[in-house]
Amino acid sequence: MIAEILSVGTELLLGNIVDTNAAFLSQELAGLGVSVFRQTTVGDNHKRLFAALENAFQNADIVIISGGLGPTQDDITKEVAAEYFGRELFLHEESLQRIKTRFASRGRELPTNTNRNAIIPEGSIVLPNDNGSAPGVIIEENGKILILLPGPPGEMMPMFSNYTAPFLQQKSGKVFVSRTLKIIGIGESQVESMLMDLITAQTNPTIAPYAKVGDVHVRLTASAQSEAEAESLIAPIATEIYKRLESHIYSDNGATLPEVVVQLLGSQSHTLAVAESCTGGLIMSELVSVAGCSSVFLEGLCTYSNDAKTARLGVCAGLIKKHGAVSPEVAAAMAEGAAKTAGTTIGLSTTGIAGPDGGTAEKPAGLVYVGLCINGKTETAKFNITGNRNEVRLRAANLTMDMLRKALG
Amino acid sequence: MIAEILSVGTELLLGNIVDTNAAFLSQELAGLGVSVFRQTTVGDNHKRLFAALENAFQNADIVIISGGLGPTQDDITKEVAAEYFGRELFLHEESLQRIKTRFASRGRELPTNTNRNAIIPEGSIVLPNDNGSAPGVIIEENGKILILLPGPPGEMMPMFSNYTAPFLQQKSGKVFVSRTLKIIGIGESQVESMLMDLITAQTNPTIAPYAKVGDVHVRLTASAQSEAEAESLIAPIATEIYKRLESHIYSDNGATLPEVVVQLLGSQSHTLAVAESCTGGLIMSELVSVAGCSSVFLEGLCTYSNDAKTARLGVCAGLIKKHGAVSPEVAAAMAEGAAKTAGTTIGLSTTGIAGPDGGTAEKPAGLVYVGLCINGKTETAKFNITGNRNEVRLRAANLTMDMLRKALG
Repeated sequence: MIAEILSVGTELLLGNIVDTNAAFLSQELAGLGVSVFRQTTVGDNHKRLFAALENAFQNADIVIISGGLGPTQDDITKEVAAEYFGRELFLHEESLQRIKTRFASRGRELPTNTNRNAIIPEGSIVLPNDNGSAPGVIIEENGKILILLPGPPGEMMPMFSNYTAPFLQQKSGKVFVSRTLKIIGIGESQVESMLMDLITAQTNPTIAPYAKVGDVHVRLTASAQSEAEAESLIAPIATEIYKRLESHIYSDNGATLPEVVVQLLGSQSHTLAVAESCTGGLIMSELVSVAGCSSVFLEGLCTYSNDAKTARLGVCAGLIKKHGAVSPEVAAAMAEGAAKTAGTTIGLSTTGIAGPDGGTAEKPAGLVYVGLCINGKTETAKFNITGNRNEVRLRAANLTMDMLRKALG
Repeated sequence: MIAEILSVGTELLLGNIVDTNAAFLSQELAGLGVSVFRQTTVGDNHKRLFAALENAFQNADIVIISGGLGPTQDDITKEVAAEYFGRELFLHEESLQRIKTRFASRGRELPTNTNRNAIIPEGSIVLPNDNGSAPGVIIEENGKILILLPGPPGEMMPMFSNYTAPFLQQKSGKVFVSRTLKIIGIGESQVESMLMDLITAQTNPTIAPYAKVGDVHVRLTASAQSEAEAESLIAPIATEIYKRLESHIYSDNGATLPEVVVQLLGSQSHTLAVAESCTGGLIMSELVSVAGCSSVFLEGLCTYSNDAKTARLGVCAGLIKKHGAVSPEVAAAMAEGAAKTAGTTIGLSTTGIAGPDGGTAEKPAGLVYVGLCINGKTETAKFNITGNRNEVRLRAANLTMDMLRKALG
């Protein structure tokens, strides 16, 4: 099946917001075995949206429109869809009731234009909106499927995953199962070359590698008559990829790197203190983004100045003078000092040159040393990282968390 | 003038990357007085790109294509453009030389397919690529303008700003000047209602408010015969907006909030220590993102546990017991302790409940206290912030930095 994605909103054409919906829908559709040949964005303009819809159905079996389902006069998607299929709009009582309940439960007054929110084209399938007011709509006619979804990603994404994807799965008569292997420490091109024979020979499951900031994801998608059968198609390929990439794979269940680290620390009853210099708070900020981190992450210190390294962590001023603040010796002393002064089982540290200034021929921008002290035993690592100041910091933070993950893994 | 933006790349249709180019170009074009009526994304497919180009020129005077200028067989944009205008491709020696110099200066070997990178349609204007290999191209014919730009944002954005925007400005015979006022502490709808009469009456300059994460931007764009004339059109409107929004405006020269804070600290010879609880490293991470921050930002402490608040900052255990860790008293003691133990003139602190768990009826998720101690004088502030865990943390970090900015402003 071929799909086209239509994003509706003048704010998109003005560049006021970036369209993340198109990428989300494209990725989800690929996982359902649906090919997207074109994405189009138009403004809140009846004539141009109608033309885009006509144009889309010339090539696509499925058109998904996101945006323009709200209650204001600018929101015209349902009118255009009704006109295209020659259908009337009517007030969908169940949706109206749902909106009323939603507002009442929050103690908020119902807006005057709420009825417009609950109007849908006759003969549609209605998709409930669990995170907002506007319901979604599916219209099927002569083998063409039109799906209307709300524009806000927080409403659109769960509506797609919970109500739209199952509908499309049922249409295809197949079950699609995806598993994403998340990989750190090697680049996309290296991952591709290590898996090239598998990628070339892919049929079912499909194997799709793609680069993210700081890591690489490989998504395996299998289609079958049942979930169990799809899983059994994925299993041997996943096993083979694990055999090749080994500990570079940090997650296959959707967990992020800091989530994996916090989970490992908890299950092994460790406590952690972090001392950051060049990464400047990024590691602790990532750890604190995980709800419940407080049981394992006790404190973080951003010891940006040499004085702070000495006063807070007990790093000898002489050691800094002898080896320089950016050195394996100081990284080790920072990790040890963090664990000791915080009374944790583990200390983790970074010291490096984020750039763009401050580098020398001997110690260029991008040079980062990491220290890891577990129960008094310390190791260090050296990284040469490319990119601008914030890319260096982000990659350094990820590689540092990964060093801890591997040590606990 | 009317423009259409065409993004080219199969990775966009697979949802592997989000298209930020379309938003950037739309915003820049709006600032140049060019209207964008449609954005279209197609894959690396000759037939479909050709059809999209034909379709685009049915409505637009200007078509901008980003992507597909690279040296591989997948990169077909220049071939399609040449075919559309019936022109031959030839090797552009100057571009080839530029690429060779670029690789040589980095000590890297020239790829074998480099010539393909330097091939352009005859009769084009060539736009130099200061950040990569593929040159950009402008083709003009019968009042239609086709502009080809590289896909990577780091190459495309400077090429647009430095070489494409001046070309379009010259075409329009006008100079466009934009100024963006960045606003914090009030929401988009409040900004709009405070400026409603100005927005309704806008002609030249145009006034465009839009919401970002954590702040609101208002962009003023004036067109005139000269830059000075455009500036003089902007000045009275900017002054009026300053009069209404006062200190909510933190920047009108492109500077970010942490950049403004670091600049203020430096110009007033202050030094800063930060103690973060619920924001967990976000504030220090933002400050460290500013190159050269090390002269004013001496250290940051993420004292997530109560023990760390006591051991690192000297906050009395009794005070925490009496008022709770999330209280104005503890926020004040944290700020004072940060400044005292770090030996800085300023201490800044946060303590709150990021959620989703840990809230009570009395102290719900989203409650954040901020402490600010300047030369021994301490004040605190209370915020009730909505959003998920990371939105609460991000907004709290911004509001905290803003409190410091206002105190120094």
